[in-house]
Amino acid sequence: MTKIHGGDIYSLGKKVIDFSSNINPLGINDEIISALKKGIYNIKFYPDVECGELRNVISQKESIDKKYIICGNGAAELIYNIVLAIMPKKALFTAPSFFEYERAVNIIQGEKKYYFLKYENDFDIFENILDYIDNSIDMVFICNPNNPTGRCVKKEIILKVIEKCEKNSIFAVIDECFMDFVDNREKYSALEYLDEYRNFMILKSFTKVYAIPGLRLGYALCSDCDIIEKMYLSRQPWSVSSFAQKAGIAAFENRDFVKKTVDFISNEREYIIKQFERLKIKYINSKANYILFKSEINLDEKLLKYGILIRNCDNYIGLGKGYYRIAVKRHNENKLLIKAIEEVYGSGNVDYDTRNNV
Amino acid sequence: MTKIHGGDIYSLGKKVIDFSSNINPLGINDEIISALKKGIYNIKFYPDVECGELRNVISQKESIDKKYIICGNGAAELIYNIVLAIMPKKALFTAPSFFEYERAVNIIQGEKKYYFLKYENDFDIFENILDYIDNSIDMVFICNPNNPTGRCVKKEIILKVIEKCEKNSIFAVIDECFMDFVDNREKYSALEYLDEYRNFMILKSFTKVYAIPGLRLGYALCSDCDIIEKMYLSRQPWSVSSFAQKAGIAAFENRDFVKKTVDFISNEREYIIKQFERLKIKYINSKANYILFKSEINLDEKLLKYGILIRNCDNYIGLGKGYYRIAVKRHNENKLLIKAIEEVYGSGNVDYDTRNNV
Repeated sequence: MTKIHGGDIYSLGKKVIDFSSNINPLGINDEIISALKKGIYNIKFYPDVECGELRNVISQKESIDKKYIICGNGAAELIYNIVLAIMPKKALFTAPSFFEYERAVNIIQGEKKYYFLKYENDFDIFENILDYIDNSIDMVFICNPNNPTGRCVKKEIILKVIEKCEKNSIFAVIDECFMDFVDNREKYSALEYLDEYRNFMILKSFTKVYAIPGLRLGYALCSDCDIIEKMYLSRQPWSVSSFAQKAGIAAFENRDFVKKTVDFISNEREYIIKQFERLKIKYINSKANYILFKSEINLDEKLLKYGILIRNCDNYIGLGKGYYRIAVKRHNENKLLIKAIEEVYGSGNVDYDTRNNV
Repeated sequence: MTKIHGGDIYSLGKKVIDFSSNINPLGINDEIISALKKGIYNIKFYPDVECGELRNVISQKESIDKKYIICGNGAAELIYNIVLAIMPKKALFTAPSFFEYERAVNIIQGEKKYYFLKYENDFDIFENILDYIDNSIDMVFICNPNNPTGRCVKKEIILKVIEKCEKNSIFAVIDECFMDFVDNREKYSALEYLDEYRNFMILKSFTKVYAIPGLRLGYALCSDCDIIEKMYLSRQPWSVSSFAQKAGIAAFENRDFVKKTVDFISNEREYIIKQFERLKIKYINSKANYILFKSEINLDEKLLKYGILIRNCDNYIGLGKGYYRIAVKRHNENKLLIKAIEEVYGSGNVDYDTRNNV
C-alpha cells in the first residue's frame, strides 16, 4: 500500500526522533499504563460492542447525552463510518487538510469540491466558505484546528456553516481531534451546538492528546441518533478493542493532564517559533501541537541523516512542494531539531541566502 | 445498537460462564501475554500500517507470499473491506451462517440470494450450490467450518465453487476462521488453491484459536494484489493496533498450541455429544469448537439462572426458534453445563417427554 501519512517509523530501518506524527510529548499517563497492565487477561473476552462504560465516562466529561456518543477504532475509523452512513454524492473539503476524509469519500466514488486555503492568508478559513455550501453537495469536512496548518476557525463561523448546511440538508463533520491542544478552546469548539443541531458531528481522538496512537481510540458526537445507528451498521460490531476501552476510561482519571499539556505545548511552540524567526524560516502560526513551515530544500531527506523524521507535506492537495510539518516535542528534542535544521542550512548544501526567499 | 451476536457478557450485570462465544478454552498463550507486557510502551507509536513483521511471520507459517496477506482489526473488519473492494450488486450466502457477510453487503444495499441449508441434511453444503452460482451474482460467501453448525465442506467442492466463480467473474470469500480447530483440516482448507486462483480470498482469525477476541486480529489471503490494494483503500491505514500486531507475532511462537487445541476440543466435544445422546438432545455433529442443538424450551433464559450464557440462534436466517449454540469449553465447565441442562429439563418447568420431540 502507498504510504500517505507521517509516523512511519517502520520502513526506515533505524531509530529516529519522530517529528512527523503529532503525539503529546508528555507521553502516556501512568493511569493508562496501569489499566492496560491490569486488563491484559481481559482480552480473552469480546469487547463490549456498545463501549458502555467508556461512553459513560465520555458522557460525563463532555456533558453530552450518552446516546449521542459513538466510539471508534481511532477517530480515523469514524470518518469512514460517517461517510458510509451519509453516502455523499459530492463532498466539500478544505485544502490542505487531513487526507482521510477524501480517502473515505473515494470508496463510494463521491465527487469532490475544494475550498482552497491560501498561504498569504495563513491558510485560514473565512466566512466565504458559505458560498461553497449549496445544494450541489451532501457533506462538508472541516478540521479545527486544521491539520497540517494548526489554524483554528472561530466557532461563530462554524455555526454559520452548520446553519447553512442545515438549510441545504448537508451533513457537516467538524474534526476536533487536535482541539485538546488548543488554549481557549471554548472560542473554537462546536461542542455547545450539539444539542441544537442534528446535522453535524464532532470527531475527537484519544490518540493524540493521550499519546496512544498504537492503541486506536476515538469518538464522535452527534445528536442525530439515526446517524449514529447508521454508523454502527457501517462496520463490524467489535471494532473498539477491550484494551482501547480500558485505556480510554483510565485516560480521563488524570484530570490535570490536558491543561498541563496545553501549557507545555504553548511554551515549546513559542520556543520553536522564536528559533524559526531567528533562522528566517517562514512558518504558519499554529494553535496546535504542530507547525507547518516552508523550505526550498529537501529538508526531510537532509534531517533523516541526523536521525530526525519530519513530515514532507508535498502530497497534501493545496500545498505542493516546499512545505514541511513538525510536531512540537520535548525541549531537548526541539533543540536537536533546530540545531539540525541550522546545520543543514549552514552546511553549504544550499545557498544560505536562498532560505530567506522560500 | 441492536445486539446480534454471542459473547455479550456486559449487559447481564453479573458474572457468567460464557458458552455463547467460541473461544479456545485453553486460553491465551504465555508468549502473547509476555509480548503484550513488553509492548505496552510501544502504543505511543502509530502502528505499522503494513503490519510488516506480522505479515512476515504469517507468510512463513502459511507458506504464502507476503504480498498476498492483509491483516485486519479482527477478521470481521476484513469482511467489510472485501465487500467495499468488490462492491457486489448481488451476493450469495448460505443460510444459516455468520451474519457479518450480509451486514457488510447491506451497507451498499446489495441484493441477497440464499442457498438454504437443511436440518435433515445436517445443514451440509452440497455440490448443488453450483446451481446457485451464475451471472446474476458478484460475490459468494462460504464459512468453512460453518458457524453456527460446525459442519465442514470438503475442499473438492470448494474448488468447484471457485472454478465456477472464476468462469462467471464472481469473487468468493472462504471464511476459515474456525479451521484451526478442525482435525484433518487439509481435507477442507482451500489454502492450496490460492496460488492458482485469484478470484477468492481465505479469511483467518487469531481471535478464536488464540483466545484474544478483545484484541482484534485477523488476516486474509488472496493472490489478486489489486483486490488487496482495494481493501487497503476501503479503510483507515492504522486499523490494526500495535498490540494486536505484537500479539500475532508472539502467537506463532508456540508451535504446538494449535495441535494441542485440536486434541483438547476433540475430546471435550465427544464428551458433550455423549451427554447430549444420553439426554436425547438433537444436535448437529460438529467439527469445530461449538455445537448447534435443538431445544423446544427457552434454554438460554433458563440457563442464565445457573450463571450460564449460551447462544440463542433464533436470529440466524435459515434457523428460527428452537436452535441454540454452545462453545466447547474446559471439562469442568462442560460438566456444569450438562448438569444445568439436565436440571432444567428435569425441573418440571417442561414436560420431560416433549424433549424427545424437538
